[in-house]
Amino acid sequence: MSLLEKINSPGDIRGLSVKQLETLCGEIRRYMIDCCAKNPGHLGASLGAVELAVALHYVYNTPADKIVWDVGHQAYAHKIITGRREAFQTNRTYKGISGFPKISESPFDSFGVGHSSTSISAALGMAVAAKLSGSDEKIVAVIGDGAMTGGMAFEGLNNAGAMKTDILVILNDNHISIDQGMGGLHSYLLKISTSETYNRIKNRVWDLIGSSRLRRGVQKFMFSTKMAILKNGSLFESFGFRYFGAIDGNDIGQLTTTLASLRNIKGPKLLHVITKKGKGYRPAEQDQTVWHAPGTFDPMTGKRNIPAPGTAARYQDVFGETLLELARADRKIVAVTPAMASGCGMNIMMREIPERTFDVGIAEQHAVTFSAGLAAAGYLPFCNIYSSFMQRAYDSVIHDVALQRLKVILCLDRAGLVGEDGATHHGVFDMAAFRPIPNLIIASPLNELELRNLLYTAASDAVQGPIIIRYPRGTGEGIPWRDVNFMPIPIGKGQLIRDGSDIAILTIGPIGNLVAEAADKAAAQGISVLHYDMRFLKPLDEEIMQDVCSKVSRIITVEDGTVTGGLHDAVSSYVSEHAPHIHVTGLGVPDRFIEHGSVKELRSECGFSSDDILKTITSTPAESC
Amino acid sequence: MSLLEKINSPGDIRGLSVKQLETLCGEIRRYMIDCCAKNPGHLGASLGAVELAVALHYVYNTPADKIVWDVGHQAYAHKIITGRREAFQTNRTYKGISGFPKISESPFDSFGVGHSSTSISAALGMAVAAKLSGSDEKIVAVIGDGAMTGGMAFEGLNNAGAMKTDILVILNDNHISIDQGMGGLHSYLLKISTSETYNRIKNRVWDLIGSSRLRRGVQKFMFSTKMAILKNGSLFESFGFRYFGAIDGNDIGQLTTTLASLRNIKGPKLLHVITKKGKGYRPAEQDQTVWHAPGTFDPMTGKRNIPAPGTAARYQDVFGETLLELARADRKIVAVTPAMASGCGMNIMMREIPERTFDVGIAEQHAVTFSAGLAAAGYLPFCNIYSSFMQRAYDSVIHDVALQRLKVILCLDRAGLVGEDGATHHGVFDMAAFRPIPNLIIASPLNELELRNLLYTAASDAVQGPIIIRYPRGTGEGIPWRDVNFMPIPIGKGQLIRDGSDIAILTIGPIGNLVAEAADKAAAQGISVLHYDMRFLKPLDEEIMQDVCSKVSRIITVEDGTVTGGLHDAVSSYVSEHAPHIHVTGLGVPDRFIEHGSVKELRSECGFSSDDILKTITSTPAESC
Repeated sequence: MSLLEKINSPGDIRGLSVKQLETLCGEIRRYMIDCCAKNPGHLGASLGAVELAVALHYVYNTPADKIVWDVGHQAYAHKIITGRREAFQTNRTYKGISGFPKISESPFDSFGVGHSSTSISAALGMAVAAKLSGSDEKIVAVIGDGAMTGGMAFEGLNNAGAMKTDILVILNDNHISIDQGMGGLHSYLLKISTSETYNRIKNRVWDLIGSSRLRRGVQKFMFSTKMAILKNGSLFESFGFRYFGAIDGNDIGQLTTTLASLRNIKGPKLLHVITKKGKGYRPAEQDQTVWHAPGTFDPMTGKRNIPAPGTAARYQDVFGETLLELARADRKIVAVTPAMASGCGMNIMMREIPERTFDVGIAEQHAVTFSAGLAAAGYLPFCNIYSSFMQRAYDSVIHDVALQRLKVILCLDRAGLVGEDGATHHGVFDMAAFRPIPNLIIASPLNELELRNLLYTAASDAVQGPIIIRYPRGTGEGIPWRDVNFMPIPIGKGQLIRDGSDIAILTIGPIGNLVAEAADKAAAQGISVLHYDMRFLKPLDEEIMQDVCSKVSRIITVEDGTVTGGLHDAVSSYVSEHAPHIHVTGLGVPDRFIEHGSVKELRSECGFSSDDILKTITSTPAESC
Repeated sequence: MSLLEKINSPGDIRGLSVKQLETLCGEIRRYMIDCCAKNPGHLGASLGAVELAVALHYVYNTPADKIVWDVGHQAYAHKIITGRREAFQTNRTYKGISGFPKISESPFDSFGVGHSSTSISAALGMAVAAKLSGSDEKIVAVIGDGAMTGGMAFEGLNNAGAMKTDILVILNDNHISIDQGMGGLHSYLLKISTSETYNRIKNRVWDLIGSSRLRRGVQKFMFSTKMAILKNGSLFESFGFRYFGAIDGNDIGQLTTTLASLRNIKGPKLLHVITKKGKGYRPAEQDQTVWHAPGTFDPMTGKRNIPAPGTAARYQDVFGETLLELARADRKIVAVTPAMASGCGMNIMMREIPERTFDVGIAEQHAVTFSAGLAAAGYLPFCNIYSSFMQRAYDSVIHDVALQRLKVILCLDRAGLVGEDGATHHGVFDMAAFRPIPNLIIASPLNELELRNLLYTAASDAVQGPIIIRYPRGTGEGIPWRDVNFMPIPIGKGQLIRDGSDIAILTIGPIGNLVAEAADKAAAQGISVLHYDMRFLKPLDEEIMQDVCSKVSRIITVEDGTVTGGLHDAVSSYVSEHAPHIHVTGLGVPDRFIEHGSVKELRSECGFSSDDILKTITSTPAESC
């Protein structure tokens, strides 16, 4: 029987020896690889943080003591040893456990995460609460070097440093975020961890202590270390933190002794640990970007199951290749993304035109306002940010782009339900959030060819201010788009998909293709469906609205976003003023947070699967007053 | 004739001697005080930055070289010497010049500002553009120590440091933001500027150089200074910036020589200048918080024109006093604000219960997530942020509060049109932005008594998750509220203001009082108006909706916020599904950015003045299809 099989809660590991902890870490790693090989997840970061998770639960009295994992996709080991070993096989599946810590899932998940850079702020809130209650609870935030570049992390550091509350921030430094870290901080951290001082200490002193287990000696040592390498940590010292490190975060012995020493030191402390993303699994160590989230693979060989060629292109390929094509032709085009260059396809342009492609690190607000600065100086920035992360830059879009009517092309990738990443990552609020903002054009393509043409149109003189283009993750409709001549798309104009007279369906974005199928089935049942793809949420195509209002007395709207505030409300608002005899039914994401699962499962849950759409077309709505 | 009268553009100052520049600064200060005495503005910060504005335009070749002022309310001297001397008398008035730099106002305003912490990002965009164009333009960002605590400023620093682009960031350090700065950074900066090194250099070396004007010597000196006090600036050095300073930012001689030296140094540079808020006007120097925006005053005596007692209480007083009353009774209540403690009235609780009141500095995202951390640990946070600044924390509200259904009471002060602060500060997007977010309750009180009762209700067990309470700046309706017994307000329930049968008006918030007056006038003309105050945008009161739908065929909605996405859309959405025979007209803020002016002027411009409301009630709408 393995050690891991006996670990049902952190209490079960607290009696183990360092040797046993090492064995346990190996077993966890093996288990994690086997599970993720079949059921894909964020493997790389979690492999690097196995020792960190084990050491934290070993030293701290969780769940009374609280650990806040930043982002959270490095927390698989944490999940596995806090009562979710078996459940981990359902990771990220519908009705299974979440890929991120969640308060509602376990008392060991002290704070829900998903977006980066929130942990210090949340942990500080808990630490202040502990102080006010007179409790002796300890609070630890674990944040990666990538997440540390997000502005909110600095807001938290700055405030925590001044408050003098007891808090430990562990900087989990693996020298890599999803893409290459692109900040001054990155160079700074690299300098610390490759410095002679660090390596001298690491080699000479830690090994010695690790072997002789001079626990009390370590505590004294921590202070002298701190004095010796104070200048390394001065950034954090400037904020009022005491800096400790850097230490090897994949050495469970070092980690447990260090954490035990730090546990009783008062005030704001930062422990800098160096870990290896993908640690212990050779393929993942060797290509860390690919193995951030590798999909399924053969655990023995490390061969990834890559979809066979011939399947439809992904929207990300269309974005990346089209952007490059446009940028080749127009030297004013620049591209900006906050750490999503490979995810969104901008790496294609980055390879060929690096001097006009900017990965600014995890920093959504900066990405948008930096783009606004470029636009104010006469350049034409394409700024690509995942829809749910764009929520971070909401004010930047309003205050720095829309208000000044600067031409920034805001590309919102991962729009709509994203599937397995769940509630924190669904890009379902963007249409509702941006529709009320003046000066914005908001568009969504029906398919990959339309994405190509929308990007082209956005770059052309037909657009004189900011424009948002939202589109989903993953494969398109499989229609030809590469090398097809660019066609301008008239701004604010939708397109007729099917003419009819019984009922109208208005859609926006690729969900229109699903609706077209449902309309076919309805037609087979003798219902004449009028289907328009609106293409633009803003400005709304009033010609289409007039046509619809003159032909039918019932409209169904379908959108891959919240029914509240988006296309449904735009249509209702038009109808209630101009044609208050028309009944409107809205399909889309209802007014609750949607968890994880496949996109298909989630659409069913939300009530806009193909069957749901057909059922709505064929049923008669009840009017309640 | 004064020197100032001859300054019509920065070119006119470039030939002046240091002595003349000193005289000019005195004249600008005098003029600024005289103007602001009659026509109120943000006097304090602008008094401190007179020498900075003059020196920048003296040394830099504006507008080809570009200055980005962070926040911008320190930029009055900049406006006065860039062709807007006479226009400054219309500062912040309807159709007059804006209180903030604006691209559309002058070629010298390189980037529009208003919210804090945007300048480094915008300037970096311009600097990268200059580099790509092969231009020799210089780019300068001027940012206060308060704005420097905003996370976005760090995102900008971090990215600029890595890019190695030529950029100068001037840290204008006056040791105070609107309220007391509350961060580790604040202590750090204070330590630098009061250090012996700084003062030794300042006294011994700068004076010497200032008098002998050894320009070329200065350049060498800058390097040696940098070496000498490198350890002071190591925070900025950590990000990849070269740090220079600190120098006296109210000494025009020091400033011009230093800037001239820095102008040609490559790469990212930070110049730390110490200025005095209120400089040169004794009352303003002595009470910097009050003189941040003092209202009108007698320039000779410094006596401020404070409204006579007896006028109605401000919503801010009601918030502050009620919060204290609730916090006295419930030890779990804590209060959080990002640098708006005196503006929102939280200073009342801070004086009596400082240990449960947290001013976290300019850091909206942190404020909300810190509150979420407190809530997760069992405390009951009231988090007060001005509506337009809450746009910064949009993701924090969604991801850290609403998704986890943590009970944080989000108080949005300055909701609706705010008047003279203009487009950047109107709190008009909040209802539309937050309505699509699940788990939120969104309320707005009709008057000060209702604000008091909403705060009480929010703190009670009647509310089990997050709630947003939005209310405007300024005086209430003058009805008794102090010491009135608390009355719970039923969640999701509006109230009948006037019964009627011809037409219904649905309102939310204090604008309902204006509507009630208009309804009186309409009644005098024989129109029977049914008026409900909805009180809750979310959940919408369906009983009221059913009552309205059964009685009338026409609804007018009135809201102090965007018509798109707010109450109007909530009502249209209900009607188009449940009662598609009712015509809805929406009054409120239309789909364009609204500039500055009095609230009354702006309501007229938006079409929801008392007269507009009456006119809409009495007219018949045209249906267009």
